Amino acid sequence: MTRTGERPVVAHEWVLDRLLEGPLRPDDLRLRARELPALQPGEVLVRNEFMAVDPAMRLRMDRRRAGRLAYPEGEAVGAKAVGTVQESAADGIPVGARVVTFLGFRDFAVARADALDVVDDLVGDLPPENALTALGNPGLTAWVGLTVIADLQAGETLLVSSAAGGIGSLAVQIGRLRGARVIGSAGTEDKVRWITEELGADSAFDYHAESPGAPLDRLAPDGLDVYFDNTGGPLLEAAVPRMRRLGRIAHCGSVSGYDGGGSPLRIDDVAQIVLNSLTLRGYIVDEHRAIWPRALEELRTWLAEGHLRAPHTVVDGLDSVPEALADVLRPGATHRGKLLVRLDVARP
Amino acid sequence: MTRTGERPVVAHEWVLDRLLEGPLRPDDLRLRARELPALQPGEVLVRNEFMAVDPAMRLRMDRRRAGRLAYPEGEAVGAKAVGTVQESAADGIPVGARVVTFLGFRDFAVARADALDVVDDLVGDLPPENALTALGNPGLTAWVGLTVIADLQAGETLLVSSAAGGIGSLAVQIGRLRGARVIGSAGTEDKVRWITEELGADSAFDYHAESPGAPLDRLAPDGLDVYFDNTGGPLLEAAVPRMRRLGRIAHCGSVSGYDGGGSPLRIDDVAQIVLNSLTLRGYIVDEHRAIWPRALEELRTWLAEGHLRAPHTVVDGLDSVPEALADVLRPGATHRGKLLVRLDVARP
Repeated sequence: MTRTGERPVVAHEWVLDRLLEGPLRPDDLRLRARELPALQPGEVLVRNEFMAVDPAMRLRMDRRRAGRLAYPEGEAVGAKAVGTVQESAADGIPVGARVVTFLGFRDFAVARADALDVVDDLVGDLPPENALTALGNPGLTAWVGLTVIADLQAGETLLVSSAAGGIGSLAVQIGRLRGARVIGSAGTEDKVRWITEELGADSAFDYHAESPGAPLDRLAPDGLDVYFDNTGGPLLEAAVPRMRRLGRIAHCGSVSGYDGGGSPLRIDDVAQIVLNSLTLRGYIVDEHRAIWPRALEELRTWLAEGHLRAPHTVVDGLDSVPEALADVLRPGATHRGKLLVRLDVARP
Repeated sequence: MTRTGERPVVAHEWVLDRLLEGPLRPDDLRLRARELPALQPGEVLVRNEFMAVDPAMRLRMDRRRAGRLAYPEGEAVGAKAVGTVQESAADGIPVGARVVTFLGFRDFAVARADALDVVDDLVGDLPPENALTALGNPGLTAWVGLTVIADLQAGETLLVSSAAGGIGSLAVQIGRLRGARVIGSAGTEDKVRWITEELGADSAFDYHAESPGAPLDRLAPDGLDVYFDNTGGPLLEAAVPRMRRLGRIAHCGSVSGYDGGGSPLRIDDVAQIVLNSLTLRGYIVDEHRAIWPRALEELRTWLAEGHLRAPHTVVDGLDSVPEALADVLRPGATHRGKLLVRLDVARP
């Protein structure tokens, strides 16, 4: 057991008092100061440095739809975060170690050693914020979706939605590295350019400019083998009848419906699913931990060799959390890649 | 090369002159006499004895929806059939051999040796019509769907639609043999009784008597692990939000929409698919030929030991084909298990 340094008396944390029944409003989250408890054996005190802002957090806030993943009311909102251990009552996690927890949206947190990952184990020699981008949930979600769920093969045609987002920007690049022909969709012309020119997609389209059937017919006249879907909504509905035989849809999110009543799926004729032997599969990356070591090894190699970038946008300060969450839910928002909040650790 | 016996001069066959654009009508199929050609090397002449009447035939007749599986217009309708080789120009297929072809809905047919299965290889010592029921497409479709597509485990809760039908009646029994808790749906009270009393389902319900959400909530209050779906329609829509975490839907047909404009699928909120990590997978049993030997071995053993029955209903005569096809498309039809047409080989 190791103890060191000055101990903060209070933590500041964003709290959700009530699960949502309508769209997220700025005052649904409340910043609260809370006295930090003394550590129990097996616990560490973490000072957060980077926090991931994830559209799926909105789903966990939803009274009607969150189910088993709902945030507990009246408690600090969980978010993936990288922080430094300030005080330790856990064997093998020394003070100064960088760790990833689900204890973001707060400056200081008490974490159990069995519910955290050590950043060095994830990122090796790379900067720690990679544990929230290419070597964290976004990279693992894209890798697992394309490799395990969709079994993407070289030469296949891949569609990626939200292709300028935290997960989509990595799925585009992984698809390209796997030898697929990659089509991306995004919500602004700037992002469309960025997806092709910077991320290497073969083509991309602005889903605000036209209904999705037209660009899919134009850019993939022979149909799609794999759709990496993290939006749901009209693009998913347009993709289903345009899948080729034995097509696979890896579905990791439906952000288009998170801040409304949900994203419906309307397939005119379910016979398409049999006639083309389609698979539509939802997944959560935490259910695939057994394959993370192999995924991380490949992702780290790509990063180290310069084949993969970890796009992200950084905003500063705990106060920026509510606006950042609204931003990742807003169609056509201007940030690119993963949105991270960097913490203002000067707060007393 | 072997030749023998009297050679018929003409075959009688049911022909579809035009793909359908509306519901099937009695005169859409036309019985035609056709002179049989001389055999080419590698061909055999088959006299059909049993023909399978399959709801999916209707889908192949549909101009708008059949896609790559559409029947060629103006030709005899293909159906799985067991027949006896009358004349052979193929090595290894002697006269008198029983074979399965896709050349049903006719009395005599010329088959290529590389497009048939030898009945003995499928059924062993069991009666040949098993090649169209438990040891043919219905049994293989049920076995592949539950074993490969859905990976059904002992103790899980399984829903089977069309549970009194040709495929469903086998899926119920295979589910039970795998140790699952089995719920069946059917369209008459008589069938509901038969599914539980004769096939061994734990429970069953009449989908005409109430909307499907109510019986599912009553019979599976903790939700469904696997749904073996060959109907689509309202039961599929009711099942999706009632699937447990990591639930699997094996989808081999959507008979509820075959004779109409198709079976729509309307999911209120596709987030259910991610939140519960659901898989919806369509498949065609012919795509899984590599695993047929293992499936047939297990199915044959169950049949031989009396653990599995091969339910079927027989109607006689080539003239009964159109009514038999209408019957398998009719909700609440009274036949049980697979519907077979036994051929009137006395036809001149």
